[in-house]
Amino acid sequence: MSVPHLTTALTGPLHDLERKILGSLPEIEHWFRNQWQEHTPPFYGSVDLRNAGFKLAQVDMNLFPGGFNNLNPDFHPLCVQAAMMALEGFCPDARRLLLIPENHTRNLFYLQNVAAIVRILRQSGIMVRIGSLNPDITAPTRLDLPDGGCLLLEPVQRQGRRIRLADFDPCVVLLNNDLSAGIPSILRDVDQMLLPPLQAGWAVRRKTRHFAAFDQVAHDFGDLIGIDPWVINPYFSGVSGLDFQTREGEQCLADAVSDILNKTRLKYAEHGIDEQPFAIVKADAGTYGMGVMSVKSPDEVIGLNRKQRNKMAVVKEGLEVSEVIVQEGVPTFEQINAAVAEPVIYMIDRFVVGGFYRVHTGRGPDENLNAPGMHFVPLAFATPSNTPDCDGRPDCQANRFYAYGVVARLALLAAALELEESEDLVQPLAEAVA
Amino acid sequence: MSVPHLTTALTGPLHDLERKILGSLPEIEHWFRNQWQEHTPPFYGSVDLRNAGFKLAQVDMNLFPGGFNNLNPDFHPLCVQAAMMALEGFCPDARRLLLIPENHTRNLFYLQNVAAIVRILRQSGIMVRIGSLNPDITAPTRLDLPDGGCLLLEPVQRQGRRIRLADFDPCVVLLNNDLSAGIPSILRDVDQMLLPPLQAGWAVRRKTRHFAAFDQVAHDFGDLIGIDPWVINPYFSGVSGLDFQTREGEQCLADAVSDILNKTRLKYAEHGIDEQPFAIVKADAGTYGMGVMSVKSPDEVIGLNRKQRNKMAVVKEGLEVSEVIVQEGVPTFEQINAAVAEPVIYMIDRFVVGGFYRVHTGRGPDENLNAPGMHFVPLAFATPSNTPDCDGRPDCQANRFYAYGVVARLALLAAALELEESEDLVQPLAEAVA
Repeated sequence: MSVPHLTTALTGPLHDLERKILGSLPEIEHWFRNQWQEHTPPFYGSVDLRNAGFKLAQVDMNLFPGGFNNLNPDFHPLCVQAAMMALEGFCPDARRLLLIPENHTRNLFYLQNVAAIVRILRQSGIMVRIGSLNPDITAPTRLDLPDGGCLLLEPVQRQGRRIRLADFDPCVVLLNNDLSAGIPSILRDVDQMLLPPLQAGWAVRRKTRHFAAFDQVAHDFGDLIGIDPWVINPYFSGVSGLDFQTREGEQCLADAVSDILNKTRLKYAEHGIDEQPFAIVKADAGTYGMGVMSVKSPDEVIGLNRKQRNKMAVVKEGLEVSEVIVQEGVPTFEQINAAVAEPVIYMIDRFVVGGFYRVHTGRGPDENLNAPGMHFVPLAFATPSNTPDCDGRPDCQANRFYAYGVVARLALLAAALELEESEDLVQPLAEAVA
Repeated sequence: MSVPHLTTALTGPLHDLERKILGSLPEIEHWFRNQWQEHTPPFYGSVDLRNAGFKLAQVDMNLFPGGFNNLNPDFHPLCVQAAMMALEGFCPDARRLLLIPENHTRNLFYLQNVAAIVRILRQSGIMVRIGSLNPDITAPTRLDLPDGGCLLLEPVQRQGRRIRLADFDPCVVLLNNDLSAGIPSILRDVDQMLLPPLQAGWAVRRKTRHFAAFDQVAHDFGDLIGIDPWVINPYFSGVSGLDFQTREGEQCLADAVSDILNKTRLKYAEHGIDEQPFAIVKADAGTYGMGVMSVKSPDEVIGLNRKQRNKMAVVKEGLEVSEVIVQEGVPTFEQINAAVAEPVIYMIDRFVVGGFYRVHTGRGPDENLNAPGMHFVPLAFATPSNTPDCDGRPDCQANRFYAYGVVARLALLAAALELEESEDLVQPLAEAVA
């Protein structure tokens, strides 16, 4: 495989789609090699997949991945090797990198993710310091981690067109902060390279733009290996002008849900799938699994009760939601110990470097698993003894995972297109302030 | 680390050199990034190291590595990722690769190496077939392997300026045949890309040219991290015009040995090393550990007996030896189960992808271990639980291995320079035949 051999939660035979992807390995890798000659992958990313058996689709792509601490430690050398490639590609001459994380200072899970990213970067050969945008961090602040390690957060400063720490002038800045609250002026019009670029932040980014780019990628990929692109791509549409509190736009939303459910029903009939369609309504600029609902009928978005309205109206950083994406729901047929599971695949540069299962014991196969109560099960390397037998056998776990890595990389390619196309959406500081 | 975490045979504290290399990680990786902007690494290679504690030196660099079957299977995904990079760098548009192995058809160890290379290449996304130069292979020939797999060898054909199989026109040709017997005319003036290029074969290559390039690399690296380059670089000189059977040139050889021993003695005194110097005499175009002797005095190369003469006079493919390299011997202080061991590091593109120990229970620390009776112990990943503690502790195994990877990559860089400089040494077919 061109990706780490992982165990998957599914152990049954591969479905047609996975078999087809596996059988087209040389064509697929040749195609990716050519795509990466034309398009630059983001520095890193993670992709949420859902495997319904009849369909293996990406449902979300994160350009500021948390959760590196959840990867299997066996993948660490792969992460380092891929980060070396990313540094060489983006900034071969860089010596010093400033990592800007989220403002959380008490979320130990998140801080362990930051520590994992720092370790990967340091070992790939660059000096790393951590700069915080958190207004509470006014002096270097040491945060202890459960594993005995610690992080030193230091306040970010601006000097002319450069950002820096008091005694550290970075060559390049890596964001692990998704900028949900808007692009802070300290990050605008900066001379240093920002990775990923500012338009990757949720202040600018929209899920609908990502999935529009994915439509194109899935179409081309479908042509390449001869599949209906629908089997890797969920239907979606965007609804804007919503106000969940005043119920403005409610009927538009219901119509969009109805449309997605109808299209899905037709596809289910076409492919002989005996399932009830459902739709996912998500904030178009949302993350952290906030502002998400799963509906089986347009009626369910009409006359939301106060609790539902509150849930949908506000996402991370208290932002109000007026734009949503309505996405065809993809049931997940994967289970770990009888709990519903969905794979999350991690990439650095254009390489799959690991993944884990998001598992929720209290949710069903048609529900959002990115919710309180979820836990993570790192995907492990398949036992080495499986590997040599794999070449001809499509039903081994390593082969199943190859298909996951392919769909994740298609999402990465869509993100590359999306970032190219949305470059002009970041206003220079003068206009932004004016 | 920027290389796989491996266990090493040594478990004592790191020596000064290893500590210095580890402490300079960001500078070293920055330097390598810049070197690889200027110079293209060979497709693959393996490097023999000797760790004397006071010295950690490369003693041989192989551009047609065998032994991929001896790598720990845990490294397989790293190999695949690195091979993806190599394909993308050398031939992004290639779809079909022809692998040309050595002519051995009964050496099961070697055939398993070929199978391992095929698996890496296929999984990195290219169609692979095996073309044999062996005159006995006149039709497709299936060879069974001990693990239940098999290899299909097919006769290489020439068609105009292309080489091919009957029904396979490759875009690129990967040599795992070191061309000791000379460059066959079927490989000359070929339009396809040959990897590595023909001047990498022992028909053209000389160890003395490699170590001349390594002198430059070691010098620059010594400046970078502030070490005497001697601690990573053995003294050497070349002697030509030898005839072991008629004893022609014998005195020249003795003088060269004397010179290397004297220089080494001075360095030992300068560094306060209480060891007896020795020298290694090797065929300048030799491989497979053939034509090697270890001497402690110039007298030992005067008046060789018949057995010694026969051993030195002829190497692989029955070639006569008239040129040798006299190299400062580097004792190995590494042992596995009380047997003398030396690490062999494998690289694909510019990445360390694994390694193993060459172990010999019947040889001493100042002897060549590449000899009948040797066996191999794959280096394993360090247990993941060691990893998080490593950052600050220079005495953990993963940290020791980082130094090994650095020296191996210096040898790879020297090979890149050597191949650039020796490009003109391959004669076009017309001249070669004339």
